[in-house]
Amino acid sequence: MHELRKDPILGKWIAVLKDSKPPEYYMEEGLRRTFRESFGTSCIFCLGREKETPPEIYAYREPGLPSNSPNWETRVIPNLNPLFRIEGDLGRRGVGMYDRMNSVGAHELIIESPRHDIPPEDRGLSSMSGVIATYKSRISELEKDPRFRYLLLHKDYGRRKDMFHHPHSQLVATPVIPRGIKGELEGAKDYFFYKERCVFCDIIDEEMRSGERIVMETSHFLACTPYAPKLPFEFWILPKRHCCAFQDIDETEQEDFALILMTTLKKMRWILRDPAYSYLLHTAPNRIPRKEYWHTLGEDFHWHMEIMPQLAPKSGFEWSLELHVTATSPEDAADYLRGASPL
Amino acid sequence: MHELRKDPILGKWIAVLKDSKPPEYYMEEGLRRTFRESFGTSCIFCLGREKETPPEIYAYREPGLPSNSPNWETRVIPNLNPLFRIEGDLGRRGVGMYDRMNSVGAHELIIESPRHDIPPEDRGLSSMSGVIATYKSRISELEKDPRFRYLLLHKDYGRRKDMFHHPHSQLVATPVIPRGIKGELEGAKDYFFYKERCVFCDIIDEEMRSGERIVMETSHFLACTPYAPKLPFEFWILPKRHCCAFQDIDETEQEDFALILMTTLKKMRWILRDPAYSYLLHTAPNRIPRKEYWHTLGEDFHWHMEIMPQLAPKSGFEWSLELHVTATSPEDAADYLRGASPL
Repeated sequence: MHELRKDPILGKWIAVLKDSKPPEYYMEEGLRRTFRESFGTSCIFCLGREKETPPEIYAYREPGLPSNSPNWETRVIPNLNPLFRIEGDLGRRGVGMYDRMNSVGAHELIIESPRHDIPPEDRGLSSMSGVIATYKSRISELEKDPRFRYLLLHKDYGRRKDMFHHPHSQLVATPVIPRGIKGELEGAKDYFFYKERCVFCDIIDEEMRSGERIVMETSHFLACTPYAPKLPFEFWILPKRHCCAFQDIDETEQEDFALILMTTLKKMRWILRDPAYSYLLHTAPNRIPRKEYWHTLGEDFHWHMEIMPQLAPKSGFEWSLELHVTATSPEDAADYLRGASPL
Repeated sequence: MHELRKDPILGKWIAVLKDSKPPEYYMEEGLRRTFRESFGTSCIFCLGREKETPPEIYAYREPGLPSNSPNWETRVIPNLNPLFRIEGDLGRRGVGMYDRMNSVGAHELIIESPRHDIPPEDRGLSSMSGVIATYKSRISELEKDPRFRYLLLHKDYGRRKDMFHHPHSQLVATPVIPRGIKGELEGAKDYFFYKERCVFCDIIDEEMRSGERIVMETSHFLACTPYAPKLPFEFWILPKRHCCAFQDIDETEQEDFALILMTTLKKMRWILRDPAYSYLLHTAPNRIPRKEYWHTLGEDFHWHMEIMPQLAPKSGFEWSLELHVTATSPEDAADYLRGASPL
């Protein structure tokens, strides 16, 4: 099993994979092979090849139809090469002055389209809404396990390491809250303590007032570029209604979120010519364990999605110091994205 | 002038460049052009072309010889495209709910070798020692300016965005402490508060005891892979003597640091076939302003250098969550590096 190790200075957990790789693994060819092999127009995630994958955990199809049959819109299967495994206990222990635990968790692969070459945003609103419903269903299910502290929904599209071309995202349930999220929770808590208001609600008000970073607005959501972006053309989607957990959205909001995510993804792809990108759902930690610790969480955190196109490599300087440098102002980025009219 | 903006949730500062770039700037060709143009065996940083660069700020040459003449070992000039500028005031102000300031600071380019094609580590110990002396001299000089809160010495080698092939590193003086460093200072302070010992001194003891992550040891320094690395084959160089600021090293330590840095860089280049890499000096913030704030700093922080080969692209998931995944254990990485015998 992979191992989680705690950085003794920063307090963050990192994963060390078992079957440690030699230097040759990182040479260009090795890394590229898996990617090249997966080119083509069909793969095991395509409609009709359901028997070639591990049995599905969940699928979005008409009620009454059999599992692992071809009539589905979205399908969820265990990740073939999981970072976290559901079996076993955490085995937290000290190693000299250090701390480690087993990588117990869950790692699911969400297949977002029956078609290899058509992502959900191009299949129309009902497909996109089915994807959002799948996210909601799996997050709601996994949060019942009190061993899981955080549920990470993310998509990495078009990167070299990305094994599969078939439209998909991943859901990881972790036994620790990742440091990137912890910093955000703490920052939001500090702001709430000082102002007695949610920082995200204040951001929404400020952005609606100034308007210069708005990408799109719908009845229930706002898409805007952040005032201090990590990356050029990064944008966020925030629900206007204060709500700490994504899975608490109602059906109207689900439909509206599908609309704004679908439209802004298409705008981004159009204006940046189909860039590699990631998106990540920022939602409250699992509220079932440690209720006392997160007692104000309902008030001070506000779920949202961050969409990050990968346009330029980050220097070691930028990412290790978190002193990000962006060559396009978020005001200009919003202007380009807002104006984009994809076909 | 470029602008620094504060993330209202995480509290970190990021830079937004003036002359905002359009989407086309990020398309493959645009980014690659500067890199390709700089290939070749000579550039303005080479010996004999001193008049083509801005006048030097500092040079390591025999005393009594004229400035900007060809007889030098290292040369420091203002960065041609600086992220921070020395003139002007900070102009800190609010913009609605947000905060911004001018990017006042310094940005120097340290030319580390008179030869375009021979890095200092291949020119022998006295050249490498001259580079370390240059780092020390420039950091000592810039810390006299109380506007500067942090002095960032870093090298980015072999990356696509890297404009110059000529061996060089960069020194940036910033009006804020970057978040990556702040987290480390705070973690070290918390450890000191709890244990009444320096966390880095404890790490050195632990690594010397276990031995499994040691890459190299000299009289005054230890090079080892960290227990919880951010990257495969990452390693750190730590001074055995507790000391918070790099510029406080004495001459014996300077020579010894040159030896261990030179040797481990060559080991890394050999075992990983000349990879792109970054290194970053982690030293105490400028101790002149805000003395009261950093009162325990001499005790709880310990300068060191982190060397990070860039072997595999990081997924958006990894870097935005700081949940790093490494495919080679630090014990194996140390074993490969320790055993490497470059010519």
